[in-house]
Amino acid sequence: MRSNYYHLDELAQLVQGELIGQPDLALNGLASLERAQANQIAFVNGDKHLNAAQNSQAGALIVTAEIKAQLNNHQNFIVVANPYLAFAILTHKFEIKMNKRGIESTAQISSSAIIADDAYIGHYVVIGEDCVVGANTVIQSHVKIDDDVEIGKDCFIDSHVTLTGQSKIGDRVRIHANTVIGGEGFGFAPYQGKWNRIAQLGSVRIGNDARIGSNCSVDRGALDDTIISDGVIIDNLVQIAHNVQIGENTAIAAKCGIAGSTIIGKNCILAGAVGIVGHIKITDNVTITGMSIVTKNISEAGSYSSGTGQFETNHWKRTVVRLRQLADVPLTKLVKQMDHMQTQIESIESTLKSRK
Amino acid sequence: MRSNYYHLDELAQLVQGELIGQPDLALNGLASLERAQANQIAFVNGDKHLNAAQNSQAGALIVTAEIKAQLNNHQNFIVVANPYLAFAILTHKFEIKMNKRGIESTAQISSSAIIADDAYIGHYVVIGEDCVVGANTVIQSHVKIDDDVEIGKDCFIDSHVTLTGQSKIGDRVRIHANTVIGGEGFGFAPYQGKWNRIAQLGSVRIGNDARIGSNCSVDRGALDDTIISDGVIIDNLVQIAHNVQIGENTAIAAKCGIAGSTIIGKNCILAGAVGIVGHIKITDNVTITGMSIVTKNISEAGSYSSGTGQFETNHWKRTVVRLRQLADVPLTKLVKQMDHMQTQIESIESTLKSRK
Amino acid sequence: MRSNYYHLDELAQLVQGELIGQPDLALNGLASLERAQANQIAFVNGDKHLNAAQNSQAGALIVTAEIKAQLNNHQNFIVVANPYLAFAILTHKFEIKMNKRGIESTAQISSSAIIADDAYIGHYVVIGEDCVVGANTVIQSHVKIDDDVEIGKDCFIDSHVTLTGQSKIGDRVRIHANTVIGGEGFGFAPYQGKWNRIAQLGSVRIGNDARIGSNCSVDRGALDDTIISDGVIIDNLVQIAHNVQIGENTAIAAKCGIAGSTIIGKNCILAGAVGIVGHIKITDNVTITGMSIVTKNISEAGSYSSGTGQFETNHWKRTVVRLRQLADVPLTKLVKQMDHMQTQIESIESTLKSRK
Repeated sequence: MRSNYYHLDELAQLVQGELIGQPDLALNGLASLERAQANQIAFVNGDKHLNAAQNSQAGALIVTAEIKAQLNNHQNFIVVANPYLAFAILTHKFEIKMNKRGIESTAQISSSAIIADDAYIGHYVVIGEDCVVGANTVIQSHVKIDDDVEIGKDCFIDSHVTLTGQSKIGDRVRIHANTVIGGEGFGFAPYQGKWNRIAQLGSVRIGNDARIGSNCSVDRGALDDTIISDGVIIDNLVQIAHNVQIGENTAIAAKCGIAGSTIIGKNCILAGAVGIVGHIKITDNVTITGMSIVTKNISEAGSYSSGTGQFETNHWKRTVVRLRQLADVPLTKLVKQMDHMQTQIESIESTLKSRK
Repeated sequence: MRSNYYHLDELAQLVQGELIGQPDLALNGLASLERAQANQIAFVNGDKHLNAAQNSQAGALIVTAEIKAQLNNHQNFIVVANPYLAFAILTHKFEIKMNKRGIESTAQISSSAIIADDAYIGHYVVIGEDCVVGANTVIQSHVKIDDDVEIGKDCFIDSHVTLTGQSKIGDRVRIHANTVIGGEGFGFAPYQGKWNRIAQLGSVRIGNDARIGSNCSVDRGALDDTIISDGVIIDNLVQIAHNVQIGENTAIAAKCGIAGSTIIGKNCILAGAVGIVGHIKITDNVTITGMSIVTKNISEAGSYSSGTGQFETNHWKRTVVRLRQLADVPLTKLVKQMDHMQTQIESIESTLKSRK
Repeated sequence: MRSNYYHLDELAQLVQGELIGQPDLALNGLASLERAQANQIAFVNGDKHLNAAQNSQAGALIVTAEIKAQLNNHQNFIVVANPYLAFAILTHKFEIKMNKRGIESTAQISSSAIIADDAYIGHYVVIGEDCVVGANTVIQSHVKIDDDVEIGKDCFIDSHVTLTGQSKIGDRVRIHANTVIGGEGFGFAPYQGKWNRIAQLGSVRIGNDARIGSNCSVDRGALDDTIISDGVIIDNLVQIAHNVQIGENTAIAAKCGIAGSTIIGKNCILAGAVGIVGHIKITDNVTITGMSIVTKNISEAGSYSSGTGQFETNHWKRTVVRLRQLADVPLTKLVKQMDHMQTQIESIESTLKSRK
């Protein structure tokens, strides 16, 4: 493990925080409150972690002023408005960087490809005709870059990624291992009981600062392109079908699937394993909770759900028995009818009383 | 981008359509109605696209006779009974073909493997003992073909595919990038709190004209084989467990999972992210809508569903409160009881009236 | 196909069973009851297979004493308490072993990596700095082992696996093709409408005897490690997010997803496509049925579910209409109100009778 030491004042400057304590305290790592040692710094993400902070062995803490006021057995702090953001910034300082540059001897690169001098091309990478790899971009081992694919600068493409379908990828894009970008869309014309393949003539365009996890599939468009806009972040094992368009800064958690030609707006959040049908439109600032199914357009910002959390299985089985009866139970009418019956009964009772 | 020009009459002949307009109109691409230019041809897939067709800049349109009659500002047409099918056929004309043939110098091929002269074997492909690769089959870079795997003719196997477990693959099969065929099935015998691995002795058989997307897993059988029949089409990120059998021309959308030993009939359609439990049987011509769970045999053709579309989250939360009560609400009995009470009330009212 | 013959008495000894019949009966395979031939052995897994056993052409059967007593047209048996376990043991005898050892000439191995003499390193494997590969471990072609990854002895790592993030892997671990271990966790701090990447500084630790299927993603931790304990078995296309901890001998079926920092106990079973939200805790000995969503802690052992099996689609559509009304139907109150009304009606009826 290779790591460096930083002084507390250096780190405080990096996150534009106020240093309290010993400026030259040497720190060589970030850690959780529970596991941090005296040579590490930890962050306190809200009041619910106060107890853990109080008991932490960390050499220094990243805190808000409010949190700081409640801690009495620590001496070294970086005080900031947003400790989580400060933590995010510091992770980059302690990350082990891949700083190889140049082209490994075993890479197979077409003579018509253009590779920036300070890019890194790993072992057994294959790069086809007319490809472009931008400055400071890292292509890890075994990546396949098919003909006419273009990749911007400062990108990171991990091992076994397949880039095909003439995909065009922006700057500062990260694509994690074993993901496939530009694979053929699932387009078939049914005729006389058979499926006739539709060759997919579109491509994929990925904006700047996008992030795609491992084992994802992003298919190329049938005619037009599949589009992933600037700042979109996508977790692992996600399916993006042909001609999908995803707006800026939308976040998509693991195992989501978005069917063909659906358009998703900006700043949306899809929690894990959400499924979205094809050919619909979801507006900006929509949140979909985990494992929900979206079957219709969403034209108003807000949060949408389907799917229940867990039941004890026997309880759930009895619930399902009722669910299977539910279609034949006119719920709304039933409630009205009961109100009506209640009125009738009261009227009868009053009649009886008056005749006593 | 490399593309060719075709005359309108050539394209009309290809799809056995009627040419209306200028036979020698030169076209070099297919495009959507919205984006087509004067040198491109577009297709009109039904009346709902009439407006887009009217306004399209496309040089020519593929239409039915009925659609043609409603368009007055276009001059060049191919008239066919099924424009979508004609479009599917023409995509193959405009597709950029991978026409390399032969074996790249870096491929590692066992001396006992038989490779057809006009196959293509890409860089860093590894082919094991006793394998067969048929005529005109394309194996892209980094593919692993393990011992005893056989692949027919005219197949396309994309980069990073793993073919193992002695799989046998038919003719004209397409397998997209990073898919695994023949991996070990998930078979374990529980004994004294531990899982004892069952070595999987079966294989995978894939019929002719099958299509499997990217990042799929098709496991080999425990004893007998996992079977994917002729003409089956499978999208990305699909799980096919050991000993599953899928009938001819069945279509399986992205993110479906089919558990072990389940048998699915011919001409079925599984929409996205459907889950099917193990050891059941689904007859021919069954459609399962998106994200449904299938837990029991389906012996009648038809459409089956589970799972609701999205609710606004607050509405859904209130619904779940009721769902958790539902098990203890005897719905059917309740409806009967209400009818009975209604009768009782009416009888009382008539008694009261008669005694007035 | 290469296979060996074994005598029935050898096989009986292997599973510590009682031999009945011909000790030197030569067998060269295991098969299902339905497909077994005279040179193969099959097993009878419970009474429901009695008929198939009676009609089987298998040369010998693995049975319990009870089953044996009910079969009259077979002569060769291995009698054991647990035929399924005996079958599991024998599959290893008939499995075709990968017995290559040594390092293929095309492997790229950092000079600081330590590779055991009797390990196998396949073609085009890339191994980074300070890696360790233990005795008798098999690394198939195209695997990427990034810097500081350590792998124990007797492991099997299939083609196109990516091991990164300084992952530490125990002994006798099997990781199937195209899986990614140690990829970057999905951690981003939102700030001013953008997502700020949190470099992931933790790692992945995988215990002994763990098994991970194909196309899985197991992310490295943000600060602490993601942990998969001894004896855990995981099927294909499973997502394990950063900082998840999975207890010993837990089984996870295909297509499950476990969100960040969730802790799952020992001896749990997650059926197919289960989704578990982040930051919760599930105790030991919990079973979750297929495609369920788990949104809250589970602190009692038992079985939990959500999600219904399939409905005929029209029935389901009518059910969903009712579900959308359900939030406004006070079910429990309604049942009580009906009981109350029933009492009122009976009281009225008795009053009427008394006044006759």
